[in-house]
Amino acid sequence: MGDVARKTPVLPSATLTERAGGDIVLKAESLQRTGAFKIRGALNKLHALGDSCATGVVCGSAGNHAQALAFAAQARGVPCEVFMPDGAPIAKLEATEALGARVILGGSSVDDCLVAARARADEAGMAFVHPFDDPDVVAGQGTLGLELLDDLDDLATIVVPVGGGGLASGIAIAVKSARPDVRVVGVQVETVAAYPASLKAGRPIAVDIALTIADGIAVKKPGELTLGLIERWLDDVVVVSEDAVAEAMVLLLEKAKLVVEGAGAVGVAALLGGQVTPAASGTTCAVLSGGNVDAGLLAAVARRNETEAGRRMVLLTRVPDRPGALASLLDCVAAQGANIVEVSHLREGIGLHVRETGVQLTIETRSREHAEAVVRAVRAEGYGVSQHPDAG
Amino acid sequence: MGDVARKTPVLPSATLTERAGGDIVLKAESLQRTGAFKIRGALNKLHALGDSCATGVVCGSAGNHAQALAFAAQARGVPCEVFMPDGAPIAKLEATEALGARVILGGSSVDDCLVAARARADEAGMAFVHPFDDPDVVAGQGTLGLELLDDLDDLATIVVPVGGGGLASGIAIAVKSARPDVRVVGVQVETVAAYPASLKAGRPIAVDIALTIADGIAVKKPGELTLGLIERWLDDVVVVSEDAVAEAMVLLLEKAKLVVEGAGAVGVAALLGGQVTPAASGTTCAVLSGGNVDAGLLAAVARRNETEAGRRMVLLTRVPDRPGALASLLDCVAAQGANIVEVSHLREGIGLHVRETGVQLTIETRSREHAEAVVRAVRAEGYGVSQHPDAG
Repeated sequence: MGDVARKTPVLPSATLTERAGGDIVLKAESLQRTGAFKIRGALNKLHALGDSCATGVVCGSAGNHAQALAFAAQARGVPCEVFMPDGAPIAKLEATEALGARVILGGSSVDDCLVAARARADEAGMAFVHPFDDPDVVAGQGTLGLELLDDLDDLATIVVPVGGGGLASGIAIAVKSARPDVRVVGVQVETVAAYPASLKAGRPIAVDIALTIADGIAVKKPGELTLGLIERWLDDVVVVSEDAVAEAMVLLLEKAKLVVEGAGAVGVAALLGGQVTPAASGTTCAVLSGGNVDAGLLAAVARRNETEAGRRMVLLTRVPDRPGALASLLDCVAAQGANIVEVSHLREGIGLHVRETGVQLTIETRSREHAEAVVRAVRAEGYGVSQHPDAG
Repeated sequence: MGDVARKTPVLPSATLTERAGGDIVLKAESLQRTGAFKIRGALNKLHALGDSCATGVVCGSAGNHAQALAFAAQARGVPCEVFMPDGAPIAKLEATEALGARVILGGSSVDDCLVAARARADEAGMAFVHPFDDPDVVAGQGTLGLELLDDLDDLATIVVPVGGGGLASGIAIAVKSARPDVRVVGVQVETVAAYPASLKAGRPIAVDIALTIADGIAVKKPGELTLGLIERWLDDVVVVSEDAVAEAMVLLLEKAKLVVEGAGAVGVAALLGGQVTPAASGTTCAVLSGGNVDAGLLAAVARRNETEAGRRMVLLTRVPDRPGALASLLDCVAAQGANIVEVSHLREGIGLHVRETGVQLTIETRSREHAEAVVRAVRAEGYGVSQHPDAG
């Protein structure tokens, strides 16, 4: 399958190495074809099915698995049908269709789609392909681990996202079969973390699906197969917060120059947050499992983080309606070394005197402390200030 | 210098190959240390200076060259001073200081800083390092070309950004010395394109510095050295528009999952716009020279492009102030298969009847045609619609 799945690069990260300690590299699987690791499993599954999938393959998915199966089916020249819930993101629907698959919309959840996909497969004599709970799929995802063995002689720790558990178990099996000393830690996001309780109970326990920035690993219940594999092969499964994932996405954007989806950034979040300790000797590798995040969410995350880090602030104040009044306010901000990004005038709706103008300043600052110094300086000049937490 | 500059990956691009024809790959130099190719030249220059730069190195720059020289100086353990204009982006200032350089703010332009840097170098017996007009710097940038020869057996065409001309001439010399048949085309941005006129005149002619999304190549005048090299070694220099650069940045973000700055995206813009024709046989390589773009600009570019592609639309309308009125408006939008991203209520300021509510809908659509169909459907239901071109 070397001729269809891409060998993705391993990139050193000076920023992460500095912030988390240890020697940290990133496996940029976000640069894989279709933007995620999923094609490894899908290609391997179709290879295993051989002629028995000539009539076609079917899956239920609103995400990366849909595109992966469509890609693999197109590569092998077999028909592909994908069941997606109503309201699936248009970008994902179109990307799947662009890969030659027939998309059938219906049902309100991915679970509904799985039921419909299985029924369709039975009825039409097509092969149903599960996104993770399938040994051929798990083995396919494991090829990523083989690449790590190939590229990193001193590989010591792997940090890998866990949704259904196919990628993490595939990597752990592939790597530990050759190098049992390598530590493999899985990472889930707090809002949809089914593994900790399921591992404790020894059987798959479902959690509610919540809205999460890491939608690619929002799986409500471990697989029967993958739960056992994760228990046997992984060293640990840890959990990170939504905010930590957003912060990791921005660090990857700004420092590593990589677009990584929330699900793909949980490993970096765990390293930054201390849920995973980098190896003291040898290389620690965070697997960036995918990069399929729409531009709107990306924009929102970037802006949000700028505000939270105190690098962006919105000040609302009022100035007398006379020449030079605005200039002296701006001088006061400039004297603090802050950059003004935008100035808006508000002339109604905030209870202004007729001789006053409301002014909203969007300001670029160095840090939260710097932002506070700017507010103090503006107040010291006699301007009333209300500060907004968000820059929109 | 292999132990300090990173060999950056070459990544196939299915999207570009499909949209521009030919077989197109991306040299992801945006993944270089400090986020740009500049450290290649800086490292080579310091190597060439040897002990003669033990007292330190100086440059004037508000951009990638500053970080590159700081990085190279730190790697070699020599002092570094960087002159930056007042109002330089805080992120760049901090990144340069984080690499151990002393930053001196002053002057209103990079030209002022160059003058100050040269004076400081003379006075203190330090070495002034020019960002491009220096044979050692040009040779250093050429190492990127050697990597292309190494990685691409059937290399046919290279498309490379041109600012001062150091990168383009360095690559052309390195590649054509071994493979004279490889075509090398430089790309400038319309707002700051000094090369076409200078090549015609046979001497460096200055243009005005304008605001551009490709600030990394905003150089007002070719170097004496680099103009001659570009004339001798490049096959052509073409020019692309600001809008095309923004579009290329978003394509790289969404499809290639790479954060690329405007200057780094001009080659892709030229391939998409037809200013450069991909090779009919053999590989065409677009050099993504850097990825240093702040999160705010990235967010703005992503949003803007969504709106322009008709994938995001803001509708302003009004509904009667009674139960169910909003729901039936939303039903009408949903029936068209469009996703509603945000609903805002406006109760004043747009001349409403007291029994009406203004409603602003931010809607995700598939295309411009789809957006128009949504507007028609809403109008057909009797709602007045004003449509905004921008989603903010």
